[in-house]
Formats: sequence, C-alpha cells, structure tokens
Amino acid sequence: MTGDAHDGSPERVLQALGLDLPEPPGAVGAYLPWQRLGCVVTTSFQLPWRGSALVATGLVGRDVTIEQAIAAARQCALNGLAQLRQAAGGDLKRVRLVRIDGHVGCTPGFADIPQVLDGASRLVNEVLGERGRHARTALGHVVMPLDVPVMLGFLAEVDES
Amino acid sequence: MTGDAHDGSPERVLQALGLDLPEPPGAVGAYLPWQRLGCVVTTSFQLPWRGSALVATGLVGRDVTIEQAIAAARQCALNGLAQLRQAAGGDLKRVRLVRIDGHVGCTPGFADIPQVLDGASRLVNEVLGERGRHARTALGHVVMPLDVPVMLGFLAEVDES
Amino acid sequence: MTGDAHDGSPERVLQALGLDLPEPPGAVGAYLPWQRLGCVVTTSFQLPWRGSALVATGLVGRDVTIEQAIAAARQCALNGLAQLRQAAGGDLKRVRLVRIDGHVGCTPGFADIPQVLDGASRLVNEVLGERGRHARTALGHVVMPLDVPVMLGFLAEVDES
Repeated sequence: MTGDAHDGSPERVLQALGLDLPEPPGAVGAYLPWQRLGCVVTTSFQLPWRGSALVATGLVGRDVTIEQAIAAARQCALNGLAQLRQAAGGDLKRVRLVRIDGHVGCTPGFADIPQVLDGASRLVNEVLGERGRHARTALGHVVMPLDVPVMLGFLAEVDES
Repeated sequence: MTGDAHDGSPERVLQALGLDLPEPPGAVGAYLPWQRLGCVVTTSFQLPWRGSALVATGLVGRDVTIEQAIAAARQCALNGLAQLRQAAGGDLKRVRLVRIDGHVGCTPGFADIPQVLDGASRLVNEVLGERGRHARTALGHVVMPLDVPVMLGFLAEVDES
Repeated sequence: MTGDAHDGSPERVLQALGLDLPEPPGAVGAYLPWQRLGCVVTTSFQLPWRGSALVATGLVGRDVTIEQAIAAARQCALNGLAQLRQAAGGDLKRVRLVRIDGHVGCTPGFADIPQVLDGASRLVNEVLGERGRHARTALGHVVMPLDVPVMLGFLAEVDES
C-alpha cells in the first residue's frame, strides 16, 4: 500500500466521512470476537458499543426511535469493520464482505426492520465499495442480549497477502 | 445438458410437480439477494413472495393456519431455489444444498415449527434429490419483518462448470 | 492415535470430566443432523436431549433457573460434539470449532444470556483446547421449538485424514 490516498481506499472513505474505526470490542463471555476458517472470517455479534457504553438500549418502537436505531446499526457496523480489519492484519482493502446477519430488538408491531438495518448496509457499501456488497438476513426480537436495539454478525472473505 | 429430460433433473421434477420457479425476488433494502464466497452461495432471507404479493402474513397459531404456513414455507423454498439457480448460472443441477435456516412467526405456545419447515425441506429434497439433503436450523419469533409467517435462508455449494 | 492418553486428547478430557458423548441425536424433521461443505461441517440446532428426554423445557427466568439453563447448554454442547465427532469419522482431534450460534428461550427481561451460553463455551474450550476457541452469536427468544430453554448450532472445520 502506497502512502497516497486513492479511490478504492476504505480508510480514505472513513476519513472523508469523519469516522474512525474503534478498537474492536472484546467478547462478553468465553468466546472470541471473530474466528477464521481458511480465508473466511466470521464475527461474533457486534453490539452498539462506543467505548465502554452502548449508544442505545431498549426496544425500537417503544424506547428507541428509528433514527436512534439507525445510528446504533451504524455503530455496530463500525465495530464489525474494526473486527474485520483486525482479522485482515490491519488492512481493510483485503476485506470482502459476504453477509450481514441483522437483529433488531423491537415491539411486536414494528414494521421497519429493513430500514434500521439499511443504516449498516449503506455504511459498509460506502466504505468498502464493490467489496462491501453483501447478502443480508433480518430478524426482529422482543428480547435482546444486554437489551441492545441492534446486533449484527459479519461474514467476510479476507485476501491472503 | 442434453435436451432429454432424465432422472436427476431438478427441472423435470419441478415440471412433474406443476411448479415453475419464479423470477428471483429482489432485496428490500441496500443489500443483495445472494452473494458468493468461492463455490458457496448464501442467500438473504427468502420471504413468501408470489409476484409482488406475500402469500400470507401474520402469526401462525393466530392469523395463519399450519396448512397456510406450510404453503408459505414452500413458496419461500421456490424463491430460494430461484435465487440459487440464478447464482448457478441458470443450472439447478450445479446446486448442492447445505443448510436451510428456518424462521417461523408464531404465537408463544405454538408447538409445530418443525412441521411448518418440513414444507420447505420436503420440497427441496424432492426437487434436488440427493443434492437437496440439508442441515436445518429452526426458530420461532413473535415479530417478523413484513409480518411474514415464514422466512428461509439458504446455504449451498455451486459446482464450477 | 496411540493407546497412550496424552495432553491434547479431547477424549481424555471428557474421561477426566466424567463425561461420555451420547449417540448423536437424530433430526426432528425432513433434514440431516449435520451436513458437510468441503472441510466445513455445519450442524442443525442441537437441543438438550439426554437420550429420548429433554433435560429441561420452558423459559429461563420463569420455568427454568440459570443453573438449569447452564446445564442444558452443556448438554447441547455434548450433543454438538457428538455430531462433530461423527462428521469427523469418529476422531474429535480432527475437529476445530469455528462458531457457536446460541439461542436461549427466556422471559423478555432476562439479562444473563451470555452467562447461560458460557456453559457451552467453557465446555468446548475445555474439551477441545486451542481447537475449541470459537466466535459466538447469542439471541434470546420467547418461543422455542419443542419449548427448549437452549439450542446451539455448531460450525467447525474437519481436517482431512
């Protein structure tokens, strides 16, 4: 990688968006934040941690607005990108996203699960470009670990360098 | 592929069942209906779309009967086969199913989740034969995206041709 | 494998813990307990079967205590290890765990999902050692198939021998 910023550089996009990838959050149990399988990386669910705090807790449609949920989805995506960057030896350009598994904590009648998860999908599409295009699964839940409104799992391919 | 129908032809089985694979449904957000990872294809969740309408909405055990839910599971399976056929360049014979992830929207006391999902499993077993045999996961939910009673994810291997 | 017990032997650890892997439980529908994809094995969800009975049913936080749920998670893990051993031709040393997908049936306010799933994670870490280290996903549900309090899916790599 040369010192020049260039199109196709995820880091440059992050910079242009004023975003910084955080330290990859640790696990909340006896497991790893991510694991490899050949060139595949699968992450544990990413919660909307920002530092040691969650950016939101509660159910969308009752405690959390759609706008807050979208922001939480973006935070989960930043944390996921941080995990994948670490798994790729620090180089996001080696990451190609394959699938995001999206989970939204919401009231039973909540109708906008795809809209919440698009907060994450749009961000990764923007940061990774063509290499960010992904399949996605989406589920709603009335109970979530640590009472978070959004959780995301990431499946990606990491180029050998 | 010769013009002759023959045993082992998924298309012939579909024809014999009077079934037509639909156009693969599009995504309902900023993602793709399926993505590849080497020879592996993972689909986004398939909803029971038939054309632009859902064949059923609501929870099984309250708004939707088991029979309707089984029909919805079959429709999800047809849509999934359509995605996999597209991912395999139009040739279902190149598809080997690996796993179906099944999700049923139902009342808390509903006891027949496996029976609903068997609607999908039986169909793919019939259409793909030995290459349709799959692992399966099964979950029930009291809230579902777009209020569908069934959603299915597909993981398959696609032979290079 | 020599006749000598040695460090790094999963079977020896099981023996030391006084644990026996059961017969791998069968499927409860028209699917397989596990399926392969190259060197990867994905299991169907493992329920807390012990023989033909479930070690617990009901929701954690209402019908099932945390201690009972942890025991159920361990039983799911034993069943998962039994599936993976079978998929590896009977040799657990050929199994390297990649991810556990954990599902807990619980009341909406239940806060200890990670603690329940750690029952499984700790067991596989102990039995498989370095080869047991895994990513993990965790979800809570108010409805579960067969009313079980815990279900686990396993993704593993199996060495060719």
